[in-house]
Amino acid sequence: MPKISEKGRLMPESPIRKLVPYAEKAKGEGTKVYHLNIGQPDIATPEIALNAIRNFKDDVVEYSHSAGMLSYRQKLVEYYAKNDIHITADDIIVGAGASEAILFAMQSCMDPGDEIIIPEPFYANYNGFAVNSGIKVVPIPSSIESGFALPAIEDFEKAITPKTKAIMVCNPNNPTGYLYSKDELEVLQEIVKKYDLYLIADEVYREFCYDGHKHYSSMYLKEIEQNVILIDSVSKRYSACGVRVGCMVSKNKEVISTALKFAQARLSPPSFGQIAAEAACDTPDSYFEEVLVEYYARRNTVVEGINKIEGAYCPNPKGAFYVVAKLPIDDSDKFCQWLLESFHYKKQTVMLAPASGFYSTPGCGKDEVRISYVLNVNDLQNAVKCLEEALKVYPGRTN
Amino acid sequence: MPKISEKGRLMPESPIRKLVPYAEKAKGEGTKVYHLNIGQPDIATPEIALNAIRNFKDDVVEYSHSAGMLSYRQKLVEYYAKNDIHITADDIIVGAGASEAILFAMQSCMDPGDEIIIPEPFYANYNGFAVNSGIKVVPIPSSIESGFALPAIEDFEKAITPKTKAIMVCNPNNPTGYLYSKDELEVLQEIVKKYDLYLIADEVYREFCYDGHKHYSSMYLKEIEQNVILIDSVSKRYSACGVRVGCMVSKNKEVISTALKFAQARLSPPSFGQIAAEAACDTPDSYFEEVLVEYYARRNTVVEGINKIEGAYCPNPKGAFYVVAKLPIDDSDKFCQWLLESFHYKKQTVMLAPASGFYSTPGCGKDEVRISYVLNVNDLQNAVKCLEEALKVYPGRTN
Repeated sequence: MPKISEKGRLMPESPIRKLVPYAEKAKGEGTKVYHLNIGQPDIATPEIALNAIRNFKDDVVEYSHSAGMLSYRQKLVEYYAKNDIHITADDIIVGAGASEAILFAMQSCMDPGDEIIIPEPFYANYNGFAVNSGIKVVPIPSSIESGFALPAIEDFEKAITPKTKAIMVCNPNNPTGYLYSKDELEVLQEIVKKYDLYLIADEVYREFCYDGHKHYSSMYLKEIEQNVILIDSVSKRYSACGVRVGCMVSKNKEVISTALKFAQARLSPPSFGQIAAEAACDTPDSYFEEVLVEYYARRNTVVEGINKIEGAYCPNPKGAFYVVAKLPIDDSDKFCQWLLESFHYKKQTVMLAPASGFYSTPGCGKDEVRISYVLNVNDLQNAVKCLEEALKVYPGRTN
Repeated sequence: MPKISEKGRLMPESPIRKLVPYAEKAKGEGTKVYHLNIGQPDIATPEIALNAIRNFKDDVVEYSHSAGMLSYRQKLVEYYAKNDIHITADDIIVGAGASEAILFAMQSCMDPGDEIIIPEPFYANYNGFAVNSGIKVVPIPSSIESGFALPAIEDFEKAITPKTKAIMVCNPNNPTGYLYSKDELEVLQEIVKKYDLYLIADEVYREFCYDGHKHYSSMYLKEIEQNVILIDSVSKRYSACGVRVGCMVSKNKEVISTALKFAQARLSPPSFGQIAAEAACDTPDSYFEEVLVEYYARRNTVVEGINKIEGAYCPNPKGAFYVVAKLPIDDSDKFCQWLLESFHYKKQTVMLAPASGFYSTPGCGKDEVRISYVLNVNDLQNAVKCLEEALKVYPGRTN
């Protein structure tokens, strides 16, 4: 039997999904499990997007343009203009989710052995995309004490080697919820310019900003216009994760024409998803206003709830719908498994993502968990209560 | 400005799409262009598939399982059983088209520098997937004289090196339409077993067999069950290229669990596409019967028409909806461009795919074109007439 590939062996297992069998078992035993482990919101997809699909009139579901349907890209141009990002339809390559767009970006810009600097903790699947592309993630630490702010410019400079080709950030951040400021973006601009790097900026949570803060896009950085690759997705914006439509945007024509070759090889992104995404561009502002009110309440429930638990600490992030909280535990992998396997409070428990999976530095995140606040306030209150009770009896409690 | 990647530079341009600007120009000048260059059929997608989409009832378009919706994989198990391929839902990873499934297969089994033997001419995008995966395509020639039958076992053996990890075939074949026989599959089994290779078998045209021939699947090869990776897609079967749903199937659990890690990194395949594809599994047999009658007539129109042209030759393939024809021309790239740029017959012309793009051996395919018979018989007759008239006046005619 022939061997599998080295790359295949190196591909990380999903840190979030490895707990699924334990959750299934708990449910089988009649325990209610609050799923705060994944980024699948419960918010309804806009009706306008679903109706576009329900009204599909063509006889044949055809390939679209490899870069995405022109009509959709034109709608995206309008969407970005409203966000003060001024581009043309030719600056966009639509992908099957941000996932494919990230692969296109990494593989268009980086060769095997090249290095990409990413502040950690970071979205776990960046590791998978890096292994897939043969590139090396060089993590630099951000810390819970500063709410996971951008590391200092010196930390970036210490990490730079002749192999460094790019910096990647997620803003607002998954898993920390941290919203980078204009000043922080300008720090990134300075380093990127000085070392002539690419800046791959994942901004899929752009709309999810709280406490009156506004998102500052990497596309505003005029001095590094040719270096920036924006990664985007409709999954979170319109609560439509299953449509698998994202994109990469760049003013660098060589990057786009290179990415287009990767896009042509796989023919086209999903047509139904693009039809839904195009229609979703006309989602009324009231939809986002309601969604934001809801997430704001959810964030407050989680942050306040956790900070009331003895020995636990949670920053109050300004964006996305995640927090990383510090808990008085020995090992978050063990703890999250124990929550599902050996604990329930009034036949309820909670499924969290161990933060270890969001660090690439071994040993980091062992006393942290990521919480996705994708359930309603009442469920979140119950879930936080479960967590509080669990920490009272967890055998690996540290203080 | 940082450089793009070496891989990005090596990625081939689509051989089919490079003529698009010339076609656009011809159309702009009022010339009717018969598109025989692409595999986008004009056949209607089954109503049952479109209705499933039109009746979408959920409020949220959620991620599906990374390996594909279980209900869809269970339907696929039934579909394959009808084709005498006996598998379980755990043997399937659903991808965004066969394209993604091929990437999963290549990257799960092969490391950068490994070699894959493919009889040429072959589907041009295999080159792109190989470059993307850092692997080397080793072509072995099949010839128009034998109708593009499988090369002799000695040709495979001559091509094998210590780096050889897999053989890839497309059956029925794109671009040649050739349908491999049971005997030819058994030759493949013998080599695969002897050298312990993977066999990646792209069978997306399984349903398209003519003249009473039946498809013989790579999954029937019991002695190499652990070596075979079947690649499939709903694009052609249900004339639904835009849904972007394909799959890889293997009884090798290590291959599947490795591919699943790549699948998890990108979260899930398109949900709408899977819903359409699942419903399409119940397409009545009468649909395929009508489609086959139609394609049979189209194939005969093209093959008979071309063979009547002086100096031209076209084999009569038993499968898919392509032929590779030999024409009395100096250079198929020049000829196909000339057809669009400098020729029309009664304000009509034809867009063909130069066969050069389907060979990786330099210089091959210069007097061959691929013709997709994806238009109705009347249009095909007009297109063949255009080709006949064009060959009378083409300045690069060779005999």
